Amino acid sequence: MAGSKFAYVRKFELPDTLLPGTFMVLRLDGHSFHRFSEMHGFSKPNDVRALALMDHAAGNLLEQHPDIVLAFGQSDEFSFLIRKSASLYNRRHAKILSTLTSQFTASYIFHWASYFPNEPLKYPPSFDGRIILYPGTREVRDYFSWRQTDTHINNLYNTTFWALVQQGGESTTQAHATLKGTLSKHKHDILFFRFKVNYNTLDARFRKGSTLVREEVSEDTPEEEREGVTQETPPRPVHSPVSHSKSKARSRIAVLHCDIIKDVFWDARPEILSG
Amino acid sequence: MAGSKFAYVRKFELPDTLLPGTFMVLRLDGHSFHRFSEMHGFSKPNDVRALALMDHAAGNLLEQHPDIVLAFGQSDEFSFLIRKSASLYNRRHAKILSTLTSQFTASYIFHWASYFPNEPLKYPPSFDGRIILYPGTREVRDYFSWRQTDTHINNLYNTTFWALVQQGGESTTQAHATLKGTLSKHKHDILFFRFKVNYNTLDARFRKGSTLVREEVSEDTPEEEREGVTQETPPRPVHSPVSHSKSKARSRIAVLHCDIIKDVFWDARPEILSG
Amino acid sequence: MAGSKFAYVRKFELPDTLLPGTFMVLRLDGHSFHRFSEMHGFSKPNDVRALALMDHAAGNLLEQHPDIVLAFGQSDEFSFLIRKSASLYNRRHAKILSTLTSQFTASYIFHWASYFPNEPLKYPPSFDGRIILYPGTREVRDYFSWRQTDTHINNLYNTTFWALVQQGGESTTQAHATLKGTLSKHKHDILFFRFKVNYNTLDARFRKGSTLVREEVSEDTPEEEREGVTQETPPRPVHSPVSHSKSKARSRIAVLHCDIIKDVFWDARPEILSG
Amino acid sequence: MAGSKFAYVRKFELPDTLLPGTFMVLRLDGHSFHRFSEMHGFSKPNDVRALALMDHAAGNLLEQHPDIVLAFGQSDEFSFLIRKSASLYNRRHAKILSTLTSQFTASYIFHWASYFPNEPLKYPPSFDGRIILYPGTREVRDYFSWRQTDTHINNLYNTTFWALVQQGGESTTQAHATLKGTLSKHKHDILFFRFKVNYNTLDARFRKGSTLVREEVSEDTPEEEREGVTQETPPRPVHSPVSHSKSKARSRIAVLHCDIIKDVFWDARPEILSG
Repeated sequence: MAGSKFAYVRKFELPDTLLPGTFMVLRLDGHSFHRFSEMHGFSKPNDVRALALMDHAAGNLLEQHPDIVLAFGQSDEFSFLIRKSASLYNRRHAKILSTLTSQFTASYIFHWASYFPNEPLKYPPSFDGRIILYPGTREVRDYFSWRQTDTHINNLYNTTFWALVQQGGESTTQAHATLKGTLSKHKHDILFFRFKVNYNTLDARFRKGSTLVREEVSEDTPEEEREGVTQETPPRPVHSPVSHSKSKARSRIAVLHCDIIKDVFWDARPEILSG
Repeated sequence: MAGSKFAYVRKFELPDTLLPGTFMVLRLDGHSFHRFSEMHGFSKPNDVRALALMDHAAGNLLEQHPDIVLAFGQSDEFSFLIRKSASLYNRRHAKILSTLTSQFTASYIFHWASYFPNEPLKYPPSFDGRIILYPGTREVRDYFSWRQTDTHINNLYNTTFWALVQQGGESTTQAHATLKGTLSKHKHDILFFRFKVNYNTLDARFRKGSTLVREEVSEDTPEEEREGVTQETPPRPVHSPVSHSKSKARSRIAVLHCDIIKDVFWDARPEILSG
Repeated sequence: MAGSKFAYVRKFELPDTLLPGTFMVLRLDGHSFHRFSEMHGFSKPNDVRALALMDHAAGNLLEQHPDIVLAFGQSDEFSFLIRKSASLYNRRHAKILSTLTSQFTASYIFHWASYFPNEPLKYPPSFDGRIILYPGTREVRDYFSWRQTDTHINNLYNTTFWALVQQGGESTTQAHATLKGTLSKHKHDILFFRFKVNYNTLDARFRKGSTLVREEVSEDTPEEEREGVTQETPPRPVHSPVSHSKSKARSRIAVLHCDIIKDVFWDARPEILSG
Repeated sequence: MAGSKFAYVRKFELPDTLLPGTFMVLRLDGHSFHRFSEMHGFSKPNDVRALALMDHAAGNLLEQHPDIVLAFGQSDEFSFLIRKSASLYNRRHAKILSTLTSQFTASYIFHWASYFPNEPLKYPPSFDGRIILYPGTREVRDYFSWRQTDTHINNLYNTTFWALVQQGGESTTQAHATLKGTLSKHKHDILFFRFKVNYNTLDARFRKGSTLVREEVSEDTPEEEREGVTQETPPRPVHSPVSHSKSKARSRIAVLHCDIIKDVFWDARPEILSG
């Protein structure tokens, strides 16, 4: 065959199977999103449209891959937990990493106009990704605790910073200087005494990030009640409920803005870590 | 610090540096593009719009990454050669793979409407990718020969197949049966004697695929002449010429449809393999 | 400095850290031991001297590396369990693999004459090794069950085979033919009815392999009683008890020939899998 | 089959093929040889017996593996070049690394008594190893230049240091202080003016290290002449000439103490890098 004398180059494609029986976490990060958010008029410190679009793209990934059992996002990053028994693409590293990063990117751009109807894309945004292996449930719990703690730290800082700038009339340089070395308590105080803002009553989406899980939907549950299980901010992603098992039970993706550091969340969903 | 007790999970992010001094080839493939092309009315056996869009997305990647010195595409796949001295993202495997796959995907979707003005995207297309390391120039040459040989084999088959179906009135099942076991010569004969098609005069884009290279543009070259170096089919990607060095010399991306198996192409561009 | 212009070659030494928090199993195998055992007059089906020498070399490895918490050997192979929290050589793959393989080899040859006083080494024996990562305790248990099951299968076959040859007067070709397709029960019957051998009363060393564990030795235990915890066949390796903690408790290596498939062994030694 | 329910653990043994078409360098280092050399009375700054034993063990590796085309050693380290087309153990990383490290260790101990007849081994020495991939001949040349430069630097330092101690009556602390910050020229001067030693006339073995190559031996060459090709210091390792091809040409291992930084060595042996 004509191509056969060149086909030996395929021998350089080495296998890259990820260790079986191990949890995978895929973390995606926006590429140069500081500039992207400025160019596209994201509101500060948080843009609800942008966050909801991230949630939508993440939800699409869960719909396409039953092996993803949890996702957590904040700002321009999203982490996906792939269950340890997953045989997704035979656990080939490059295949999983590239496909999921591509699908997330594609969904983000495809749905952009639904969330930013008055803000056409000036150029295409992109994401980078990495896959981290965790052998045990303790590390998985701690990974997501790490990301949610980070969400809290960043959001408290940004909320205070932008209050100083937008309401306090400080320059961004001044605001950074004001916050330099402050503890969490100081930032709470600045918000409360200078700007009458009780941080703890701000939208949970900003303080807790977005947690996506699959939830069983029993066939006879009225539609309204089903909706109640999510705490999403509209515009709500149109996630069509997908059945992911042979049984009658169907599942849908729920977007939550709750604590995932304490045990309550995990105790209520033992299937996330057991699979 | 609040997050510190969880930060140990970062220790599971292991280094993944690719071997220095080695050529990298990134190959992207459309994910389920058989279905995607059917859903979006791609003409058979080749859709010029779809091919030109692939070229455009590939050209964007070259513009963004000076370390990419060559690209070759056919159908829904594209291969990129990253020079062996590249320090792109410190040669981190996951970073390179995920970023480039994401950027290509993003560009493809962003520019979709320019190439398919009457065919709105029904759902977002995606790509998977892999990076292959080649230690020497011989293997790199043979890799691209392998892909261009594959282009030829596929295109001859598809061209004959669709002639049998579209002009010969055969069903797809019949057409596959007709072609079963035929040599290259037989397919040429079918095209020539039954359909009056001289395969060798078909658009080089289909027979040779698309090869993207960076070409120096001297400052005093009239604009019309510069255009002449490309052999692109319109609508032409608007690749703004980018300077990739401190010098006055500027370069632009040229899309060629020429033989890259013989020495001529490479002898004329020694910088591709020497870098 | 004179060497500096060449020192860049060190950049090709890429990091090879093994995933943290994961059990490592190192398995060593004798290299061409079929030939080696024939050249050095090993008795068939089992040579007590050779097995005791393997145990001795394995014991040396446990003495030198507190992170090794268990070892299991049969014939010319030995598996070592390295606890999941181990920071041995910063978990560098090549360092661990090469050092431990070398130390085992060295110990085997160094102590050869003690076990084979009348059989000088004709040439130096060697071993190959591999490291396998296991994320959970279930897989570790199953790994060692797999090796001990293999021990049983091999030993029952070999014992019956050599009985047919040595006592039954069959040629080796005949003996293989006799055993072809036989179930475990058939082999037991051949041994019992033809050769009056009750397989289950044979030396546990042959049937169960050798399991090495670290055992605490309380300071006031009389020396004789301490000895009792091992079930070793003489000549006994002179494993000097080593203290592996700051406390007064000291530990020694015990060589057992017991079942490690059932829970009893593991329930009595929870520290093996918990560390 | 009895073992089948546990056999799934083999799935955790992932492939570890080394990149084809790439040179491999295996570097072995003595484990804690500072202590080992003191415990076994090595003479300072160099012990001819110890160096010749290292050469012998290295020569055995070349004899056993035709894919090793070059070796270079100094002190307690040895580097082996495996040709880029090697299919040794299907290029499996762990298999190559562990087997070769084990064989070197085994040979070193096995032949110890021939080189140290009056110095019984007090405990078994061991080695660690690593494999480094080099894509091109330039890097391979520079790797060996790096090691030979290192040999020179170390030996000049050690020779001067031990002259100060052994002949100059300085303590080791004083000697280190005397040499602190000195350039190469200063050390030459100390040796020449204080101790009447012309460094450049010292045994080339110490200054240049040991380089092992395979040399063709024509059948009709008288045995005495063949011997002449080596520059070995006695006691000479008994390397039996081995034929490594079907042809009549036979090869033997030669131990050289020559410059391998300049082109002369390589130009005379083009097969080392071409294979």
